[in-house]
Amino acid sequence: MSIASSGTYMIYRLKIEKEQVPFGDIATIIDGGGGDIVGIDVISSGRSHSVRDITVNVTDPLDSERIGEALQRLDGVTVIHVSDRTFLVHLGGKIEIQSKTPVKNRDDLSRVYTPGVARVCMAIAEKPDKAHTLTIKRNTIAVISDGTAVLGLGDIGPEAAMPVMEGKAMLFKEFAGVDAFPLCLDTKDTEEIIRIVKAVAPAFGGINLEDISSPRCFEIEERLKKELDIPVFHDDQHGTAVVLLAGLLNALKITGKRLEECKVVVSGIGAAGIACSKILLSAGVRNLIGVDRQGAIHRNMVYDNPQWNAYAQMTNPDGISGTLSDVMEGADVFIGVSAPSILQVDDVRKMAPDPIVFAMANPVPEIDPELAKPYVRVMATGRSDKPNQINNVLCFPGMFRGALDCRAREINEDMKLAAAYAIASVVRDDELSETYIIPSVFNNKVVEKVREAVIEAAYRTGVARKSMPDFHAEDVDPA
Amino acid sequence: MSIASSGTYMIYRLKIEKEQVPFGDIATIIDGGGGDIVGIDVISSGRSHSVRDITVNVTDPLDSERIGEALQRLDGVTVIHVSDRTFLVHLGGKIEIQSKTPVKNRDDLSRVYTPGVARVCMAIAEKPDKAHTLTIKRNTIAVISDGTAVLGLGDIGPEAAMPVMEGKAMLFKEFAGVDAFPLCLDTKDTEEIIRIVKAVAPAFGGINLEDISSPRCFEIEERLKKELDIPVFHDDQHGTAVVLLAGLLNALKITGKRLEECKVVVSGIGAAGIACSKILLSAGVRNLIGVDRQGAIHRNMVYDNPQWNAYAQMTNPDGISGTLSDVMEGADVFIGVSAPSILQVDDVRKMAPDPIVFAMANPVPEIDPELAKPYVRVMATGRSDKPNQINNVLCFPGMFRGALDCRAREINEDMKLAAAYAIASVVRDDELSETYIIPSVFNNKVVEKVREAVIEAAYRTGVARKSMPDFHAEDVDPA
Repeated sequence: MSIASSGTYMIYRLKIEKEQVPFGDIATIIDGGGGDIVGIDVISSGRSHSVRDITVNVTDPLDSERIGEALQRLDGVTVIHVSDRTFLVHLGGKIEIQSKTPVKNRDDLSRVYTPGVARVCMAIAEKPDKAHTLTIKRNTIAVISDGTAVLGLGDIGPEAAMPVMEGKAMLFKEFAGVDAFPLCLDTKDTEEIIRIVKAVAPAFGGINLEDISSPRCFEIEERLKKELDIPVFHDDQHGTAVVLLAGLLNALKITGKRLEECKVVVSGIGAAGIACSKILLSAGVRNLIGVDRQGAIHRNMVYDNPQWNAYAQMTNPDGISGTLSDVMEGADVFIGVSAPSILQVDDVRKMAPDPIVFAMANPVPEIDPELAKPYVRVMATGRSDKPNQINNVLCFPGMFRGALDCRAREINEDMKLAAAYAIASVVRDDELSETYIIPSVFNNKVVEKVREAVIEAAYRTGVARKSMPDFHAEDVDPA
Repeated sequence: MSIASSGTYMIYRLKIEKEQVPFGDIATIIDGGGGDIVGIDVISSGRSHSVRDITVNVTDPLDSERIGEALQRLDGVTVIHVSDRTFLVHLGGKIEIQSKTPVKNRDDLSRVYTPGVARVCMAIAEKPDKAHTLTIKRNTIAVISDGTAVLGLGDIGPEAAMPVMEGKAMLFKEFAGVDAFPLCLDTKDTEEIIRIVKAVAPAFGGINLEDISSPRCFEIEERLKKELDIPVFHDDQHGTAVVLLAGLLNALKITGKRLEECKVVVSGIGAAGIACSKILLSAGVRNLIGVDRQGAIHRNMVYDNPQWNAYAQMTNPDGISGTLSDVMEGADVFIGVSAPSILQVDDVRKMAPDPIVFAMANPVPEIDPELAKPYVRVMATGRSDKPNQINNVLCFPGMFRGALDCRAREINEDMKLAAAYAIASVVRDDELSETYIIPSVFNNKVVEKVREAVIEAAYRTGVARKSMPDFHAEDVDPA
């Protein structure tokens, strides 16, 4: 997930003496202080004064303070309150629990609670699989984090991670109608996290792991995939990988190259880098070289990190060693999930014709897109203010929508590949260009296409548990 | 929680040949089969036939099958589908997650998610207390069960317990605007449950424990109360106790007796019985005798159950032994949270004048209210089809509403007593009668009165963490 810089909205609530202060004076102060007035709301208006909320976009937080001070100094103006739209929208949290039916009388109560609920409980006790139809398990997933690798902020703890997980829950609902509940765990112990997720699983139809630091995220995900019968998906790894592949498939259409023939360099062999490499290999890439701080990862070395030893076995077929700069020679594709500004213009110039550069480090990419521009054919980043943003939001809503709808027991490689092809397909061939290889996160075709592709792959690979004829009709037993 | 018997609504979807079948024939079959038609909805109507949903109330599930079979035998009628309203309302679960604000464009996204959310995360990381204002913690509690003591159904497991916990979440929202999320845990291990609840606590402002079997429920609640800084409340114990006390306070107004002077017999010394006894002692009862299967609990015995040894120390001041029947001699009040039909009419006849009997075993009370009627002054049960229902729903919504609103760090004895007095106060003195000692669960004054009383008690006892002046104004920092 990215932290790109963006403007902040501040709301200044001002009491303005009507005769003393023309609004132009206020506007002049705000403009002069670097703010941009985007809205004026009258809160109350009396004979002598009015109270107004002035909404102002500022890019530098220091500007907002200076503007507030300058307004306060203006004769006839009192700053009643300064608030911040981003903080306001977080007040009391961003999601809530809603009943699907009202409970207004004894009749309602006896159906949704005692005594009627007892028959539903017994139906599930007798046939536990019915939990998938008769409880929230059908449409609800958990978004689980331990707060150790949140955005670019690092280990900020479970309370501070909640706003991100709540935001994620909003996106699940808004984009795909999936009910997602955030659980931020007050433990970093791998085994304990595994036990907790297993213990809370009865309520959920899927588990989205989020912002758990490497290498614990690998063990946690792998064990939970084995030990639970519902999908477990670490979005930081696989969401990134799916969307990257989608973008790359379209970029290659532009250059006319095939995955099988490309030399692909992946920079940053952490959780996301390993997942990106794996999906590229699954999709057909043969010549893939991973590079981390100490250079290319190859099978003639023994690494402290067991993930890297496994990685060396499946990549870098020619056993090439050297720095990032060395291995960029003749590369067709650069995939960066590493660190700001580690790729030089000279490195890009060494690439094969029609170079494709995905510089996804956030908020500052591996290479400044402006510097790279003259030398690359297709460029993508993680930033929303540049073309071709590689954003997980393109994947996770449709992925879980599909997995829940066919009651998949897991999310497997085929489903991820299918999701990537589905995302890529949203950009039609006649729309495709160097600056449009991947759909916007607000493109409303994405979720439905991903969902369909994921369901098809789930049935094909035998992990869908909803019997095909049941697909549109729910099974409701009379008691 | 109770399972009383009640009618079930069945919905028969019928295809009816128009010329062949007068509706009277269908009505005759349903009436004759013991069903009561409560609604007829036309789903489609063509030239030759119509499709109708006939909603029928039946008291015996066998009747519903017989009616379906008889309808199927009728010439010109096809039973397309039979469904059950209770099951229909459970389809896909009873609660959902809702976003509080829409995410329709880049501007929304950048505020509720990246990049804007990062500033909110950092504000909480710097001052963790802000989680109470800037995340769902402010208004969200967990409803946690291990599915071991669900209704009268016993240990039915976490999946099967979900419909009850979802129902509870609905009641929290509908009655008090509290967001409650159900977590049914796939473990019965006391220590593991404690660890899990502590680990998930960052998301929540309170923990409602539910339907966890005795004696594990005591250890789990006590440890969590000590180790967490948010309210932990085992509703089966304390909810019952609070509502019982509320009813008893009003019953005593009718008989003109004082708690301090009453001899109170409590039958059934499990989780609820111990909690009821404790609140009665807190409220002023001096002469309280607990009775379980082996008779009165007294301090001259050593029990295997450590809870009973502690119980003996605080009750039964005269060290009376004997059977339930023995100790009923001269009792003013009988409180039953035990087993069906264990109290005899002769036992009631031995009580002091103006006997008060709370027979709360479910679904069958300790004594049949009809049998007891001639000999008691005030009678209450757990049943919704009799006067004076002792129902936890009167307590938990307002209790947590109050605790969350003043950011209480715990729910203490004073808050429980205050809640009981508040519930009792809803029945005005001029309304009070032998058949109206406790308000209906749908009385809309209850939650507000309980909330106010709980908040007042929380401030008085120093467990409220919201500073008084802040009470109505939220603290929103500009970044």
